[in-house]
Amino acid sequence: MPTDEYGAPSRFEAHVKRRRSDVLVNRQNFSDWSMSPLQSQLGTITPNGLIFERHHNGIPDINPDEHRLAIHGMVKQPLLFTMSDLMKYPSVTKFHFMECSGNGLTDWLKPASKTVQQTHGLLSCAQWTGVPVSVLLEEAGVSPDAAWALAEGGDGAAHARSIPMKKLLEDALLVYASNGEMLRPENGYPLRLFIPGWEGNVSVKWLRRIKLGDKPWHLRSETARYTDPMPDGKWRQFSFEMEAKSVITSPSGNMKVRPGDLVIQGFAWSGNGHIKTVDVTTDGGRTWREARLEGPVMDKCLTRFRLPWKWEGAPATIASRAVDSTGYVQPTVDDIKKVRAITGFVQHHNAIFPWSIDASGEVKNAIG
Amino acid sequence: MPTDEYGAPSRFEAHVKRRRSDVLVNRQNFSDWSMSPLQSQLGTITPNGLIFERHHNGIPDINPDEHRLAIHGMVKQPLLFTMSDLMKYPSVTKFHFMECSGNGLTDWLKPASKTVQQTHGLLSCAQWTGVPVSVLLEEAGVSPDAAWALAEGGDGAAHARSIPMKKLLEDALLVYASNGEMLRPENGYPLRLFIPGWEGNVSVKWLRRIKLGDKPWHLRSETARYTDPMPDGKWRQFSFEMEAKSVITSPSGNMKVRPGDLVIQGFAWSGNGHIKTVDVTTDGGRTWREARLEGPVMDKCLTRFRLPWKWEGAPATIASRAVDSTGYVQPTVDDIKKVRAITGFVQHHNAIFPWSIDASGEVKNAIG
Repeated sequence: MPTDEYGAPSRFEAHVKRRRSDVLVNRQNFSDWSMSPLQSQLGTITPNGLIFERHHNGIPDINPDEHRLAIHGMVKQPLLFTMSDLMKYPSVTKFHFMECSGNGLTDWLKPASKTVQQTHGLLSCAQWTGVPVSVLLEEAGVSPDAAWALAEGGDGAAHARSIPMKKLLEDALLVYASNGEMLRPENGYPLRLFIPGWEGNVSVKWLRRIKLGDKPWHLRSETARYTDPMPDGKWRQFSFEMEAKSVITSPSGNMKVRPGDLVIQGFAWSGNGHIKTVDVTTDGGRTWREARLEGPVMDKCLTRFRLPWKWEGAPATIASRAVDSTGYVQPTVDDIKKVRAITGFVQHHNAIFPWSIDASGEVKNAIG
Repeated sequence: MPTDEYGAPSRFEAHVKRRRSDVLVNRQNFSDWSMSPLQSQLGTITPNGLIFERHHNGIPDINPDEHRLAIHGMVKQPLLFTMSDLMKYPSVTKFHFMECSGNGLTDWLKPASKTVQQTHGLLSCAQWTGVPVSVLLEEAGVSPDAAWALAEGGDGAAHARSIPMKKLLEDALLVYASNGEMLRPENGYPLRLFIPGWEGNVSVKWLRRIKLGDKPWHLRSETARYTDPMPDGKWRQFSFEMEAKSVITSPSGNMKVRPGDLVIQGFAWSGNGHIKTVDVTTDGGRTWREARLEGPVMDKCLTRFRLPWKWEGAPATIASRAVDSTGYVQPTVDDIKKVRAITGFVQHHNAIFPWSIDASGEVKNAIG
């Protein structure tokens, strides 16, 4: 039996797969998303075949030899790059999480999803390789008046976002590889923007141009979509950062546990730094104990936490709470309600997320 | 078009695949190996589908629910573990290279292989997740007389090695995952031993038992195989460590370059620590310049190096030379010949490896 030229998982791992939403079931697939099986993720890296994805109008089939990246607008010298050009530049390689701002939006006020794949699966982590955007912008020569950049992708929707220059120059990357090989088509092959720690959709996939300007363009994906309702009736725009968050992946929804020695495990991450601590409650938030973090703890990256727990068999509610290096503490839904309007399918759901365990050991979504 | 539940690379990446040997062509496949496409590896991680493999007698199809690990011999209490048992222990996650001691054995004294995939492809790097062997040995209770362990796999060959207790207790792992998901069948699913920095075959795949004893067992794979001929006519046994090594992956064999600004890139690694420096020569070893290392530089892990080079068009010979944190300097074939007998297909080929570039820009294997 020849070994496959490109290997596949064991047939006994067929249950480990991406899933579309059980709650927001799309009758078409041009605009859709699929979630990573976080409950099965070992270590901190998401294998390439399981990285989550969201597409607004299909997944383009791009020939890398024909793909071009244009840098234009408020620059001294507009530039056009082939993939071959881009891959000549010194690359950098970083481990970072990537998360959709809509992760969990079905599950704010009452349980809708059953599993952690459904509640938190628009989240992955990988080794990203690419060229710092700053290197290319320096070459093009940024006009002193340039304050914003329009990043546009070559998908059917020409998905585009306005991005502040400051972040672009700071640590934004033009990424072409994840975990050692070229990006997967659904994740942006052959090129995407990658903005560490910011909401997934600003990391524009199938990137074809960056245009510099002096003000934002107020595109569809930052007005009609990806904005947040506020208590005063207005909508918050440009809520870029993915604030500190954590979730218990085991035990989690749809699992069943038996009394005895358990290990509570999960992931924590922050778009604003690294994870400092993760606390875990097993009594619905009355008391908290500090969990152990698995090193190395990296900046804007998934961190695994672990807490051994002896479950005696009585009903319990478990949850985790992350604190990041800025001192920010992961809030509850009630905390968030004080400052934002939680009125349905709202973005940026980074609230503490409880699972209930009943006397028979069944674990269920206990949000709201 | 629904997104695959387990994604695959773009069709434009079909050329990126594992390959069997072009030089030692096996007419059967029960004992065989396939090499990672290092020339295409971006970042430092090898994607799971491209991790190299070597098997001595087929690849077993193991049901993880039926798999057992026995720890017995010179222990207070013999133990038997299921996979479920093992995965309850606190896991550790480490980035490490893995290399076959036979990597490059066809190419000592004259060129036989054409590409870097063929000369160096029995080498990969991944995020490995598992349980420290020491945790389980502590539970079994190691007898004070135990000095060696026999590690045996459940493949057709029952491949087994004798391993010194000291290393086993130091940093050996019982690994079940690579890059976030369970091991691939050809890499040992569901469980392997992993000995950081040591030759690949001691990281016994499809691990089924560890037996403790007071002396080595002198098994086939450490007598008839995996020993090294010495100048005095004897054979060196238990040459475990993969000493510091490096190779230029671009430009490399079978590539073609044009005069102008090139970037010499490659990998360096050491089984005895981390990489301290990598020097590169473009004049066949007369002069050397220090290359830039891409961080983070990790212990017993692939490190990428890079050196910009303006090629004027004249024939040239390029090579890299690694220095690790112990001060060990990667030797030449001539250096190695002084202390070992290089008499054919000999293991542990960590010599400096030159590529020649002719006036037309064709890159060729220039060893020996």
